[in-house]
Amino acid sequence: MLEAVEAMTTEDLMAEIGQRARAAGHVLATAPADQKNDALRKMAEAVRQATPDILAGNKLDVDAMTANGQTAAFLDRGTLTAERIEAIAAALEDIVALDDPVGSVMAAWERPNGLKIERVRTPLGVIGVIYESRPNVTADAGALCLKAGNAVVLRGGSDTIHSNRAIHAALQKGLSAAGLPEDAIQIVPVTDRAAVGEMLRGLGGNLDVIVPRGGRSLVERVQTEARVPVFAHLEGLVHIFLDKSADLEKSLDIVVNSKLRRTGICGALETLLVHEGVANSHMPQIIRALQEKGCEIRGDDRVRDICEGVVPASEEDWSTEYLDKILSVKVVPDLNAAMSHISRHGSSHTDCILSEDQAAADRFQSEVDSAIVLHNASTQFADGGEFGMGAEIGIATGRMHARGPVGVEQLTSFKYKVRGTGQTRP
Amino acid sequence: MLEAVEAMTTEDLMAEIGQRARAAGHVLATAPADQKNDALRKMAEAVRQATPDILAGNKLDVDAMTANGQTAAFLDRGTLTAERIEAIAAALEDIVALDDPVGSVMAAWERPNGLKIERVRTPLGVIGVIYESRPNVTADAGALCLKAGNAVVLRGGSDTIHSNRAIHAALQKGLSAAGLPEDAIQIVPVTDRAAVGEMLRGLGGNLDVIVPRGGRSLVERVQTEARVPVFAHLEGLVHIFLDKSADLEKSLDIVVNSKLRRTGICGALETLLVHEGVANSHMPQIIRALQEKGCEIRGDDRVRDICEGVVPASEEDWSTEYLDKILSVKVVPDLNAAMSHISRHGSSHTDCILSEDQAAADRFQSEVDSAIVLHNASTQFADGGEFGMGAEIGIATGRMHARGPVGVEQLTSFKYKVRGTGQTRP
Repeated sequence: MLEAVEAMTTEDLMAEIGQRARAAGHVLATAPADQKNDALRKMAEAVRQATPDILAGNKLDVDAMTANGQTAAFLDRGTLTAERIEAIAAALEDIVALDDPVGSVMAAWERPNGLKIERVRTPLGVIGVIYESRPNVTADAGALCLKAGNAVVLRGGSDTIHSNRAIHAALQKGLSAAGLPEDAIQIVPVTDRAAVGEMLRGLGGNLDVIVPRGGRSLVERVQTEARVPVFAHLEGLVHIFLDKSADLEKSLDIVVNSKLRRTGICGALETLLVHEGVANSHMPQIIRALQEKGCEIRGDDRVRDICEGVVPASEEDWSTEYLDKILSVKVVPDLNAAMSHISRHGSSHTDCILSEDQAAADRFQSEVDSAIVLHNASTQFADGGEFGMGAEIGIATGRMHARGPVGVEQLTSFKYKVRGTGQTRP
Repeated sequence: MLEAVEAMTTEDLMAEIGQRARAAGHVLATAPADQKNDALRKMAEAVRQATPDILAGNKLDVDAMTANGQTAAFLDRGTLTAERIEAIAAALEDIVALDDPVGSVMAAWERPNGLKIERVRTPLGVIGVIYESRPNVTADAGALCLKAGNAVVLRGGSDTIHSNRAIHAALQKGLSAAGLPEDAIQIVPVTDRAAVGEMLRGLGGNLDVIVPRGGRSLVERVQTEARVPVFAHLEGLVHIFLDKSADLEKSLDIVVNSKLRRTGICGALETLLVHEGVANSHMPQIIRALQEKGCEIRGDDRVRDICEGVVPASEEDWSTEYLDKILSVKVVPDLNAAMSHISRHGSSHTDCILSEDQAAADRFQSEVDSAIVLHNASTQFADGGEFGMGAEIGIATGRMHARGPVGVEQLTSFKYKVRGTGQTRP
C-alpha cells in the first residue's frame, strides 16, 4: 500500500502507482495459471469475509449520494447489499473457470528451412480502468486483468470511493494469500481529476491501455485526451433492419426484447428500419406491442401514415442513443437503403437483420461495418458473457486489437517464438 | 487524380486526399479477392510497361541527390535499374499468391442457446505510409494494403518523389484496368512537412493507422506526434544469449550470420551475452571469426581478459543500435542475468538464445518480452518474408494488434457475425 498519500503531489503519487504496477506486471506475466486462479478464489473468500466492512463503506457513500440529491436510479446502481456482495464474490470464482490465455498458441507453422514459428499470447502489461458508479467493476475489472496476466490501476468514481476501497482491500488480501504482489491490483486513493489526467498521459510509459467504463462524457474525454490506446465505445446506436422476408412472430419477439429487456445498456435497440414490403403487414403489430409496453415511437411520415400514436421523428432522432423507452422507426425501400442509413448514422457497435432470405442476411453481415452484426437474434446479446467469453471489461468499437466484447483473450498481446536447429539466413 | 494542387493549401489538399481514401476504402472493403488479384497483376504489367518513365523520373531524383552530395549508400538505395523495376513488378505478383485475409473466419463457436458466433477478418480502413528513400516501398506498401482491402495514402521522401510518382502512376493504371477506384492508392503530391503533420493528425478521422518506414528520427516523430495508432519499431537492439550448453559450431555460424549478413537491418545482432561457463571455450573463436570479417568488438573487462583486439565497451554501448560492423559483448553469470540485461537494454524487437538445454530455451522464450524470440537460429530471420507471411509493411514492437512482422493479416481488423433462429435474451 502507498504510505503517506497526503504528503505527495498527485503527479508523484500517480508516477509511483505506475512504477509499482509495472513491477507487479512483470511478476504476473509469468505467474502460472494455478497461482492466478488460487488468488481469484482467495479474493472471493476475502470479499465474502469483508462483507461488513464493504457494507459500512457503502453506507458512507450512499449517505453522501443521498445528501447530494442523486436520482433513485443512480443510488440503486451505487448501493450494495449482502446479496450483491455475494454476487461479486461468485463472479470472481466464475473467472477461475475461464481458460488462461497467457502462453496459448494462436497459430503455429513450419518454414521450408525447418524453422518452427509459433504466435503465442502474452499479457498486455498494465491496464488502467476509469469507471463511474458501479462498485462491482472494482472486482470484475481487477479479476479479468489478473487472469490475463496484467497489472491494473483502478480509478473509480468519487461517489463510491469507500465501497471501492473496501472491495479493493479484500482483493489485495487474496493476492497476498496466493503469493502474488498486492500491487497487481491498485486503486487510485485520491478523487481529484488530475489523477485521471495522469492516467491519460500514460503514467510515464507505465500504462499500456485504458478502459473507460461510464457515461458518454467520460468516454469522450478519454478518447480525446488519452496518449495510450483506449478500448471503448462512445455509444451503441443499434439498428435492426426488418427485411421484406422477415418472419413476423420471430421479429416481434426480437424487436421487443432488443428495445425493452433493458433500455439502458449499449446493446439496446435505438432505430428500427422497416423494408417497405412489410411496412403494412409487419410494422403495425410490432409498433403496437412496443407501445403497449410503454415505449414511445418516433417515426417518419410513412410510419405515421400506417401506425397510430407515432410522434414525428426529427433528423436528430436518427442519431440519438435514447437509452430509454423510445424507438425511432423509418421505412426504407430496400436492403441497400438500410445499409446506407446504418453507415451514416450508426456507431459501428451492434446492428441486426431480421430476414428469412439467406442471401440478404449474408450481404448485411458482410457489408455492415459494425463490431457485432446479428441475424435473427436480439441485439441485447451484445455482451461478453452472452458470447461465452465468461466476462467482459467492456465493448470496443475501435478497429485495432480489441473489437466487440473485450474479454480475457482481448486483454493479451502476443509474441512469436521461433525454434531453429542452427538455421542462418542466406 | 487531384486537380490544381498548386492552388490548394496543404490542409485542404490533405483533407481531400483523406476523403477520397475513405470513399475508396468503402469500395475495397467488399471487393472480391479475384478483383484485387486482377488489379495486382495489372499493376505489375503497368509497372513493366512504365519502365522508361520510371527510369526517367529516377534520373531526375538521382541527379538531384548527387548534386546535394548524398552518400554512396544513400544513392544506391534511391537508384532504380531495369532489373530493380522488374523486381518491383515481380513482388506485386507475389502478393497475388497470398491468401486474401478479408472475410476469413478467425474463430467460430456455438452457444448453448443455439447462437452461432464467428469472428471474421475485415479491413482496417485507410492506412498512411510515411517512408524515406526506397522507391520500391511505393509499390510494396500499396499492394499489401490493397490485398487486405485497405485504401492507402503514401507519403514518400522528397529525394525520390519523381520515381515514386512514376511508379504510382503505373499502380493507378492497374487499379483502373481492374475496375477498382484509383483513389485506393494515393500519393501525396507535395513534399512539405506540413503534409506529414496532417497525416499525424489523422486526416480528419479518415486515417486509421500510420506505418512509418525510415530512420529513427522519422519513427520517433511519428510515435510522439501521431493521433492515430502507429505500427512501428523505434530500433532493433537485438541480443543473442550464448548459453552454457550452446553448441560451438552452430553458434559460430548463427552469430556471424546474425551480425554480418546485413548490418543495416533491424534484425541485425547488436549485443552478444556470453554465459561465463563458455566464455573460455566458445567466445574466443566466435570473436575471432567476427574480427576476421572486419567487425569491431567492444567488450567488458572479462571479454578483454580472454580475447585479443577488443575495444573497451562503455555503458552507452549496451544501449546502442550500431547498424554497422560493430558488436558489443558481455560475459554474464547465468540465464537470469542475461534476461535482466535484455529487459533493461533491449527494444522488445528480436532476441535469441543459443542453447542445447531445452528448459533454458523454454524459459528464455517465455520470459523475454520481445516481439520475436528465437532459439538456435539467426536473428536475421526477423522478417515477414522469412516468416512465410509473403511480405511485410514493417515490423512492430507495440503490444496492441500488430506485433512482429506486419503482413497482410495484420493489416486487417475483425467483426463478430452472430447467427440466430429467433433467440431473445432472458
